[in-house]
Amino acid sequence: MTSASSTRPLADVYASSLSLLTDLYQLTMAYGYWKQGLQDREAVFHLYFRRPPFEGGYAVCAGLAYVADWLETLHFTEDDLAYLGSLRGSKGAVLFEPGFLEYLRQLKFTCDVDAIAEGTVVFANEPLIRVKGPLLQAQLLETALLTLVNFQTLIATKAARIREAAGPSDQILEFGLRRAQGIDGGLSASRAAYLGGADGTSNVLAGQKFGIPVRGTHAHSWVMSFEDEEAAFAAYADAFPDDSVFLVDTYDTLEGVRHAIAVARRMREQGHELAGIRLDSGDLAYLSREARALLNEAGFPNTRIVASNDLDENLITSLKLQGAQIDTWGIGTKLVTAYDQPALGGVYKLAALRKADDSDWEFTIKLSEQLAKTSIPGILQVRRFVSEKGQPRADMLYNTAAPLPDKLEIIDPQDITRRRAVRANSDYRELLEPIFRAGQRVCELPTLEEIRQYAQREVHSLDPSIRRFLNPHTYPVGLEASLHHFRTDLILEKRPLRPA
Amino acid sequence: MTSASSTRPLADVYASSLSLLTDLYQLTMAYGYWKQGLQDREAVFHLYFRRPPFEGGYAVCAGLAYVADWLETLHFTEDDLAYLGSLRGSKGAVLFEPGFLEYLRQLKFTCDVDAIAEGTVVFANEPLIRVKGPLLQAQLLETALLTLVNFQTLIATKAARIREAAGPSDQILEFGLRRAQGIDGGLSASRAAYLGGADGTSNVLAGQKFGIPVRGTHAHSWVMSFEDEEAAFAAYADAFPDDSVFLVDTYDTLEGVRHAIAVARRMREQGHELAGIRLDSGDLAYLSREARALLNEAGFPNTRIVASNDLDENLITSLKLQGAQIDTWGIGTKLVTAYDQPALGGVYKLAALRKADDSDWEFTIKLSEQLAKTSIPGILQVRRFVSEKGQPRADMLYNTAAPLPDKLEIIDPQDITRRRAVRANSDYRELLEPIFRAGQRVCELPTLEEIRQYAQREVHSLDPSIRRFLNPHTYPVGLEASLHHFRTDLILEKRPLRPA
Repeated sequence: MTSASSTRPLADVYASSLSLLTDLYQLTMAYGYWKQGLQDREAVFHLYFRRPPFEGGYAVCAGLAYVADWLETLHFTEDDLAYLGSLRGSKGAVLFEPGFLEYLRQLKFTCDVDAIAEGTVVFANEPLIRVKGPLLQAQLLETALLTLVNFQTLIATKAARIREAAGPSDQILEFGLRRAQGIDGGLSASRAAYLGGADGTSNVLAGQKFGIPVRGTHAHSWVMSFEDEEAAFAAYADAFPDDSVFLVDTYDTLEGVRHAIAVARRMREQGHELAGIRLDSGDLAYLSREARALLNEAGFPNTRIVASNDLDENLITSLKLQGAQIDTWGIGTKLVTAYDQPALGGVYKLAALRKADDSDWEFTIKLSEQLAKTSIPGILQVRRFVSEKGQPRADMLYNTAAPLPDKLEIIDPQDITRRRAVRANSDYRELLEPIFRAGQRVCELPTLEEIRQYAQREVHSLDPSIRRFLNPHTYPVGLEASLHHFRTDLILEKRPLRPA
Repeated sequence: MTSASSTRPLADVYASSLSLLTDLYQLTMAYGYWKQGLQDREAVFHLYFRRPPFEGGYAVCAGLAYVADWLETLHFTEDDLAYLGSLRGSKGAVLFEPGFLEYLRQLKFTCDVDAIAEGTVVFANEPLIRVKGPLLQAQLLETALLTLVNFQTLIATKAARIREAAGPSDQILEFGLRRAQGIDGGLSASRAAYLGGADGTSNVLAGQKFGIPVRGTHAHSWVMSFEDEEAAFAAYADAFPDDSVFLVDTYDTLEGVRHAIAVARRMREQGHELAGIRLDSGDLAYLSREARALLNEAGFPNTRIVASNDLDENLITSLKLQGAQIDTWGIGTKLVTAYDQPALGGVYKLAALRKADDSDWEFTIKLSEQLAKTSIPGILQVRRFVSEKGQPRADMLYNTAAPLPDKLEIIDPQDITRRRAVRANSDYRELLEPIFRAGQRVCELPTLEEIRQYAQREVHSLDPSIRRFLNPHTYPVGLEASLHHFRTDLILEKRPLRPA
């Protein structure tokens, strides 16, 4: 059945429990917390990345629908527990005591989860997800949340960049399944690519599961299965008189275009129009110009020219500069694997912990030799200040557990001399929204179609200088000044003063 | 339950039908063949890659267990058919006639499938899978076979390279799930990494589903959840007295090592030994040497040093050259995404088709401007000639549907001046083995453990010059001379003679 099943993207395909979709250390830590009686100590974690992908100026947030589905179905089945019970340490003893397995059997998810809506443009250091709840549970979520959000955010961002290069009116079709990183590497890539700006996918399962428009032409093997190319095209037109796109490069591309035109003429006599031709190799700039000229001369100015062959945003830009006559871009490998940067380095860091006497929060920090890798303490919210036209001006990270001063100032965590005073009465919105409260879903998530349209508006609301590919302008994201000072003090407190 | 479920790797996790895990064009072509009455014309396709990944000299074949599982369960469910029936062309008419959907409903898989065993070292142009059967069916398999084989072969090869760099005695742990490309991008990467040479994974689901040893330490957040680092280590040791690996870089790495040693001393008093420490940032060469010295001085020469942080085969090689004292390598992103080349460009090409009168085979070819991308016609087998010690000497691709001459000669398809005469009585083995006959499985596949051991033997059987990372020696793979001549004639026949 067609379904825009953005509310259950996992359950449709993955029937087995996915509660063990995690790193072992989440379970060994859980065991340790349980042994120490720390399992219910309230904790806050943030999921964020430290640098936008592709040396770009932004990312498009994605994956939340998967996260919500995973969290809603999270529980340990008897199979899961039997497996965990079978694990042995190096001395042959069980790794986990039976009491802990019983604890996992009873475990109910009770965390609060806030998240930035899918399709929102986001920047370095901004919590995409904030988890607040019992330490053991909140820790346990780390790996799955990262897996689901890192990849889909990466691909949605790649698709937005490809849309940027192709322009608003060209068609972008995602063709990547055969080179994807596994089944779900294909399936969730198709979802994220559509979310980020693609118009359709070749992936039929993604069409079925997510309601994404499916598109396709034919392969070289189709042409090779007939006496000659013209016969092959004619047979395809027979099956799809109004939806034929002929792949013309099996033997010789421009000869192929001539064969396509011959068949298109006969189609027209029957009242049908050739939808398009596809170029899949060779010099696409030259061949598309020649093909366009041949089609136009023959009276087929509306026949589309689809191009594919290891394309990405940079090649599309280059082809357009060369006057390529391509109006539909088939993007495979480079999109679904995010070829030039196949992973987003999102992290999940502890930022606050209730004191042992439950009285108050203690804010925590992870140091690093590199300041950029030092975490941000607090229970964070992201406030986005916008112009009167709704254009984002600057984002402020602040600690919701501390009072905000009247005069707001933000400080760039990478360069503390870059400061901005926030105008009084600036319009703003808070990006993190409640998704779960005490383990219960508290919101309806939008459909994939709604997310896609929102994402387009989001990307377009950014200044072009932030969207450009080469050395983009850095969008201002700062720590609210009191948070910055608090963090600096905490770093100095934790970092030993070394001899020079 | 633990299970070395290499025979049903998909069914365990993906309960929904995966028959639509394909590109739409496979179905539009199927429809076209059905309309033309060509659905049962016998065809032969080969799946192969054109260049080993990572600019290396070989690949380790993987993914067949998934392929076999997918093929065994292939059928169109009512949901699948309802979805396909819902698709509309541009003029609003159904894309597929009801008669075709009925055909798909009745469709039974009846192909012959031959494949190279998982774990075998393979080279450019060698068919990893050969499918022979009705044109419609054989075509329909393309996308899923490519998705499953491309990715797992890529990752198994990456793991073999990392094993090459780490040497035979170091431990290699795959830690990549959080940066993997989706759930299955993580899960099948864990399988392929283990197959190719890793010793374990952090991915608990992969442990449960495939019986891979699972390993893990703790996160920075564990340390941050305690008053100080020493208290955190002591608490972890409490939970895992014989299996503790302390992450020492939350605040200051060498201070962390000192804290680990302090706790290790108390552990020893209780009769336990600290298993290891983990370095996750900073200068791993320097820090590991300093840590080793501190541990040794303190009487802990057997405490292992685990290192992680964006490692790959090149960084491991470099660290070893710098005298790094690391004996366990935690490899994440760079392994599970094959970061420096995140896709293997495997293709699936039609190579033979029965003539319309069913009398004989017609061999087919896909041309390209680049000779390397021109396909190889025939019903191919790969014969591997081996030395008396079993070391591979050369591979010969030949057409099983043509007689073999008495004197065998192989010709490099990239450079026809590179020819080799095969010695009479050379030992050899044929790499493609029957997996399905008339749609029925005809073999037991080995367990993952068996495949892993076989893969290690396979890689070690290669000359080191072929295994090296930089400019490896090209292993000789040639076309049997009569196949070469036949192919050349076919190219000349199909390629139009252009004016100069």
